[in-house]
Amino acid sequence: MASCTICLPALMMLVLDLNTVESVWPLPQKLAISEERYPLSPTHFNFYYGEDQASIMKDCSLLDSAFTRYFPLIFPDLTSGNPPTTLPAIVFSYFINKTEIEDFPSFQYRGILLDTSRHFLPLKAILNTLDAMAYSKFNVFHWHIVDDPSFPYQSRTFPDLSSKGAYHPMSHIYTQSDVRRVLTHARLRGIRVIPEFDSPGHTQSWGKGQPNLLTPCYKGSSPSGTFGPINPASALSYIFMSQFLKEVTSVFPDPYFHLGGDEVNFSCWQSNPDVRAFMQKMGFGKDYTKLESFYMENIVNITSNLNKTSIVWQDVFDYHERIPKDTILHIWKGLPAQYKAETSRMTKAGHRVLLGAPWYINHIAYGQDWRISYNVQPLNFSGTEEQKKLVIGGEVSMWGEYVDATNLSPRLWPRACAAAERLWSDESQTRSAEAAFPRLQAFRCSLLRRGVRAEPLSPGHCSDEYRGI
Amino acid sequence: MASCTICLPALMMLVLDLNTVESVWPLPQKLAISEERYPLSPTHFNFYYGEDQASIMKDCSLLDSAFTRYFPLIFPDLTSGNPPTTLPAIVFSYFINKTEIEDFPSFQYRGILLDTSRHFLPLKAILNTLDAMAYSKFNVFHWHIVDDPSFPYQSRTFPDLSSKGAYHPMSHIYTQSDVRRVLTHARLRGIRVIPEFDSPGHTQSWGKGQPNLLTPCYKGSSPSGTFGPINPASALSYIFMSQFLKEVTSVFPDPYFHLGGDEVNFSCWQSNPDVRAFMQKMGFGKDYTKLESFYMENIVNITSNLNKTSIVWQDVFDYHERIPKDTILHIWKGLPAQYKAETSRMTKAGHRVLLGAPWYINHIAYGQDWRISYNVQPLNFSGTEEQKKLVIGGEVSMWGEYVDATNLSPRLWPRACAAAERLWSDESQTRSAEAAFPRLQAFRCSLLRRGVRAEPLSPGHCSDEYRGI
Repeated sequence: MASCTICLPALMMLVLDLNTVESVWPLPQKLAISEERYPLSPTHFNFYYGEDQASIMKDCSLLDSAFTRYFPLIFPDLTSGNPPTTLPAIVFSYFINKTEIEDFPSFQYRGILLDTSRHFLPLKAILNTLDAMAYSKFNVFHWHIVDDPSFPYQSRTFPDLSSKGAYHPMSHIYTQSDVRRVLTHARLRGIRVIPEFDSPGHTQSWGKGQPNLLTPCYKGSSPSGTFGPINPASALSYIFMSQFLKEVTSVFPDPYFHLGGDEVNFSCWQSNPDVRAFMQKMGFGKDYTKLESFYMENIVNITSNLNKTSIVWQDVFDYHERIPKDTILHIWKGLPAQYKAETSRMTKAGHRVLLGAPWYINHIAYGQDWRISYNVQPLNFSGTEEQKKLVIGGEVSMWGEYVDATNLSPRLWPRACAAAERLWSDESQTRSAEAAFPRLQAFRCSLLRRGVRAEPLSPGHCSDEYRGI
Repeated sequence: MASCTICLPALMMLVLDLNTVESVWPLPQKLAISEERYPLSPTHFNFYYGEDQASIMKDCSLLDSAFTRYFPLIFPDLTSGNPPTTLPAIVFSYFINKTEIEDFPSFQYRGILLDTSRHFLPLKAILNTLDAMAYSKFNVFHWHIVDDPSFPYQSRTFPDLSSKGAYHPMSHIYTQSDVRRVLTHARLRGIRVIPEFDSPGHTQSWGKGQPNLLTPCYKGSSPSGTFGPINPASALSYIFMSQFLKEVTSVFPDPYFHLGGDEVNFSCWQSNPDVRAFMQKMGFGKDYTKLESFYMENIVNITSNLNKTSIVWQDVFDYHERIPKDTILHIWKGLPAQYKAETSRMTKAGHRVLLGAPWYINHIAYGQDWRISYNVQPLNFSGTEEQKKLVIGGEVSMWGEYVDATNLSPRLWPRACAAAERLWSDESQTRSAEAAFPRLQAFRCSLLRRGVRAEPLSPGHCSDEYRGI
């Protein structure tokens, strides 16, 4: 994490009002709330760096802007969402309990995936999600920016990709300026942005603006007019991917980069005579997983030369165990038995692992399904202590088949908060969803007060529920 | 339906632009779209009464206000949601196909239930729902206004009911003026408002503001401090209910009135010595269904004397087959086999029936669950033609356990539209959900354009998707 927030020492002394104390989510590693209670005057309230940090943290714009943001969140009745300049004449009475918090995350990677291809998400929806992520201590925005249905990223090098592949070439795209806005908004909130440009599958929309990239599918001896994954047998594919990745790895500064690699359907490759000839030339026999591995190996190498660490979906490991050791593997398939076994295999092979499978919360069910997310135990798999250290974290996925700006926020919040606590807090202190429930309800009310359209968990109400909505 | 909209003759000649034609939902009984296509000038567009209707419809404020509302819906690019006063200099080109529509509903009662007790819904959320209901031709708003968790209705006669029983006595109530606003908004859109004051169960919140109404539960020989359903053994209960129903039947003008009567738990009654003594006196033995029936019979009679037709949940019929014949029975339980058998029994006994069971769409599932709602066949039960005529319609329920203003609209729309078409359109023309799908998608885009936060049905986009949201 390349921002100065992590330089903050873990021990902080903080005074919180009673409402806030109820709703500390995710649960801090150490939290001591004393019965000593004091009135708190907003006019005298300020954030200070501790004495030992003052020299290194001085003028940290990241923290200074956070201080400005948090003032109205702490004193909502005094301000209308803007940083205060002058305070009103009547000052409300806030009370605080003396509280000590010592805190640090259990896992370094706590991500949320948004899918902006199946439905376009306007910038405002993304920025609002980043706000809510920061409130829940998520620190990675995995931006699944393009996919089969549409290509909203406006490339400098290949503008046709979005002008022909987006749902609309003007209204349904992310310009370079949009991307910068997302990056800045995220950075100020301690959130990394890891983009995913998934290939060779999931690329139908790429083909619209980039001729000769996708594999022409054949019906018998002639092209059928449809296209499959990126053509792994054509040198043009690698030339294009090199140029394109050169651009996007420079646009997105994070050292990690997600290359996808999932769900490649082999039937189109099998139908294409050029691909078949290439298979024979390479000695792959009839094993198309070798062809996919060949493609991914090239793409990972290109990315590595651009000084990025690759993240790939588990399919790449499943097909090809000898990928570079520093490649991070993203598990997305299966029930607990399957993803645990997969975690064992991957960490045994020395790979760092990202756990996504248990948190595909675009899948909805009636009732309190957050409890299922909460009860996940990321390290409960068969492996050595060294293996356990290779699980760098997890990710909540909100795939976009049935999600756009109309329903994103209430589907994501507070359901995603369950994974937020599982990835941040000490598992031994957070085993019971039942015990967590009232705290999560209070936190949901905080989200609502802060303008996040977070849905209810049970009958009831929040005192401020319609302030920001 | 006591409004002048129904006086409109069923045959109307209307010109529609191509986009609108794609999205006629629910499907009209007869729809003929000609290939003859004409430019349409908004500056010359007007609504007219047909010659044969002009005399009876003259100055119908209901229709006149609908004409005003619909102008900007038909010409969205010309106006910003307000009725036009002057038109802009540049006039966009609209094209229309000559179209003939002959239309009438298959079922007279096409309702939506909102639950404002488990979560309070601010007035704006209710009014927005009424707008969307009108677009989908729903004509009954079943207002499940109070229940166990809270009592938001502010009674003139018993103000303590809301001041002590609402989530908040000021911010979480419906004043008399709020109710009137709902009634007016609904009336102007051809929607009846049928309130439900459910008793004797589901009344925990009533007890807070009305002492001696609920049954004190006993543990052994002493009161436990908790309360059960309304006390059916106390004369005070009937006196209160008479006074209260006198008020609310006058506040809500619709001739129908929903009395609830569902899910009465007998254990508290069984524990109470006064209730047990009353059972003995009445000769009910140990059969508490007889006690519930006794209570409901009294309440139905009170309501009948107030010149209202009662609607009750199916439980009342299940316990007590000899309720007044004009009482409408609302089916809410079971899978198709059960609710069909129930429909047969009820109509055989001569009762009018309202079908709710298949449309409890507060229950959510991943994917296109609207298809399940669409495939319901309300008249597919064993019975005579006379029995079939007794099925007056159906109702979509959006119970509020997990629903408030944050997620109401996207959970309701467009999922409720499936039932809207089933209840309006000719079943023989609307058997295939597959055929309906593109039309429903287009209609969902219309809802979005009109400012209804309707969620997506599949990957894709609407041209105007972020206008109103």
